[in-house]
Amino acid sequence: MPEPVVRAILGHITLESRIGGYEAAEARHGAVHAAYQSVAALIGTQPENIAFTENATASYMQALSSIPFERDDVILTTRNDYVSNQIQFLSLQARMGVQVLRAPDRIEGGVDVRAMADLIRRHRPKLVCVTHVPTNSGLVQDVGAVGSVCREEEVLYMVDACQSIGQMPVDVHQLQCDFLSASSRKYLRGPRGSGFLYVSDRVLERGLEPLFIDMRGAEWIAEDRYRPVRDAKRFENWEFAWALVLGTGEAARYATAVGLEKIRDRVRALAGRLREALSAIDKVRVLDHGRELCGIVSAWIDGWDPRELVAALRDRRINTSAQIHPGRRGRRWGDLDCHGFGAVRCRAL
Amino acid sequence: MPEPVVRAILGHITLESRIGGYEAAEARHGAVHAAYQSVAALIGTQPENIAFTENATASYMQALSSIPFERDDVILTTRNDYVSNQIQFLSLQARMGVQVLRAPDRIEGGVDVRAMADLIRRHRPKLVCVTHVPTNSGLVQDVGAVGSVCREEEVLYMVDACQSIGQMPVDVHQLQCDFLSASSRKYLRGPRGSGFLYVSDRVLERGLEPLFIDMRGAEWIAEDRYRPVRDAKRFENWEFAWALVLGTGEAARYATAVGLEKIRDRVRALAGRLREALSAIDKVRVLDHGRELCGIVSAWIDGWDPRELVAALRDRRINTSAQIHPGRRGRRWGDLDCHGFGAVRCRAL
Repeated sequence: MPEPVVRAILGHITLESRIGGYEAAEARHGAVHAAYQSVAALIGTQPENIAFTENATASYMQALSSIPFERDDVILTTRNDYVSNQIQFLSLQARMGVQVLRAPDRIEGGVDVRAMADLIRRHRPKLVCVTHVPTNSGLVQDVGAVGSVCREEEVLYMVDACQSIGQMPVDVHQLQCDFLSASSRKYLRGPRGSGFLYVSDRVLERGLEPLFIDMRGAEWIAEDRYRPVRDAKRFENWEFAWALVLGTGEAARYATAVGLEKIRDRVRALAGRLREALSAIDKVRVLDHGRELCGIVSAWIDGWDPRELVAALRDRRINTSAQIHPGRRGRRWGDLDCHGFGAVRCRAL
Repeated sequence: MPEPVVRAILGHITLESRIGGYEAAEARHGAVHAAYQSVAALIGTQPENIAFTENATASYMQALSSIPFERDDVILTTRNDYVSNQIQFLSLQARMGVQVLRAPDRIEGGVDVRAMADLIRRHRPKLVCVTHVPTNSGLVQDVGAVGSVCREEEVLYMVDACQSIGQMPVDVHQLQCDFLSASSRKYLRGPRGSGFLYVSDRVLERGLEPLFIDMRGAEWIAEDRYRPVRDAKRFENWEFAWALVLGTGEAARYATAVGLEKIRDRVRALAGRLREALSAIDKVRVLDHGRELCGIVSAWIDGWDPRELVAALRDRRINTSAQIHPGRRGRRWGDLDCHGFGAVRCRAL
């Protein structure tokens, strides 16, 4: 986290302990509003379309829960996704009888947009879900092209931007998505325990609301009736760690000030150098493939258990993580995912 | 928040910013485990029955979502509850066709346990939900007596302990509940953005799992299958603000060290004195009623708009809040709810 982010968090926790939680939130009302504006500006939308959440999974849950699925409704997704998203689809399959379809990948990696378009036309999914940058590799998926098809076919479209937000320009109107879920703590360099959800005007106008809506998202107007609020706050819960929301606002402001194109170019160049250098070593296999790659570098190193490698690198103050590729259990992969601003360099403390 | 709570939070945020989020969580692995133990000890259970969540509403959502409701299933609740809980019941009514029944109050305040027992026998609810201390008054409901009936009738039982946790002894075996949701930030004096959920062995053995389970709560074992973990972590999300979890652990430890009986007696005595002193004033009407009262004091003061009163008191460094009683809209109430350790005294800064 950059200095201003840490300062915002520590400052607010200290204020809360001094004057009280509600009182601190009120005192920092203007800064909270500015946090909505900074995050909205980061993705090219209005504060009214932003819901702050506790993390990207919470964003995803709130969005998923707003779709009134019925038996045999189809969720169309891909083969490169975050495990938690896929588990939630399977839970909806088990509980509600929803069908989960997965579009095939292109040979060179990344979802095959043409195949996806065919599946959309054939199955009329209730929801299409694509992850911009899957967590396990440096692949960037063509979420904009999928968005065009969804718009044309008038199908709801959700993008998981957990790994792309803060790493590259992300514009919700270019992507033509209805929901976009994001985490603060990854490339955006905000705090853990904070994230947000973009909700399109189309979704708000259709009256979609989360299944577990609360008194932030709705007013209780009669014993048996409540009324959802008009904007994306419908997707928020009443209780908040405002310190983390303020930190997220600072992180968005910081990234915007540096410039997202600049960040993308720098991260991409550093990751490219790392891939090149790793490929030149005999025992190393770089696993990333796809037309467009980003700052996450995944590699397999012969003779090393990935977890032991992570520990050995940590001793040298290089932060990496070991992952098992989803859907490929039994066969273990070693992933070096170098998050943060400037890939390896920044993580080499 | 007491000093050790603030120190735990600030220390962890600083550590994260210095060495990285995953790395800090790993470095404080032992302290995180101790936080589960402290919270479990606070309510008389084991760490395996505790799920940390982002707040009490998140706890409530996860628990509610784990019940496979079908059309015409009954949720039995009371007339003194937190607005958000009631809105969630109504959402389930609208989306799933669940029926919401509300047991009547006794004349002297608080749910009529005998009437509730009749309703349980007559309607066989899928879930019974009672709030220990409703947010709008000093009333303590007899959640233990309701628990006995639920056990006898083998009906699932959820207690919202948001306002009672940290204010008085709460023992899940005495209450005989299946779920207990709690917030860190109220009488427990922990941070905002943190809470927990108790899950009974009975619930775990029955295989209940949250609808939006993720890779913390389950393992993805085949393309179309996942397996929930065995303990209450099934109800957690993978992503956490560990700084706030550590703060919650410290808060639980602090309250236990002071002693919950001692806290209850002190809070009750102070609140009693406040009610007495307020009642002696001509224009003040104390609104709390019930057989057992606690540290929340609610009053109506003639000639004052509650919000203006809150502002005027805040200028004198007395923290109160204005609320509108649920189910009584159109008629506005002024609530002085004096949270914290030692009611008024502690809030008088």
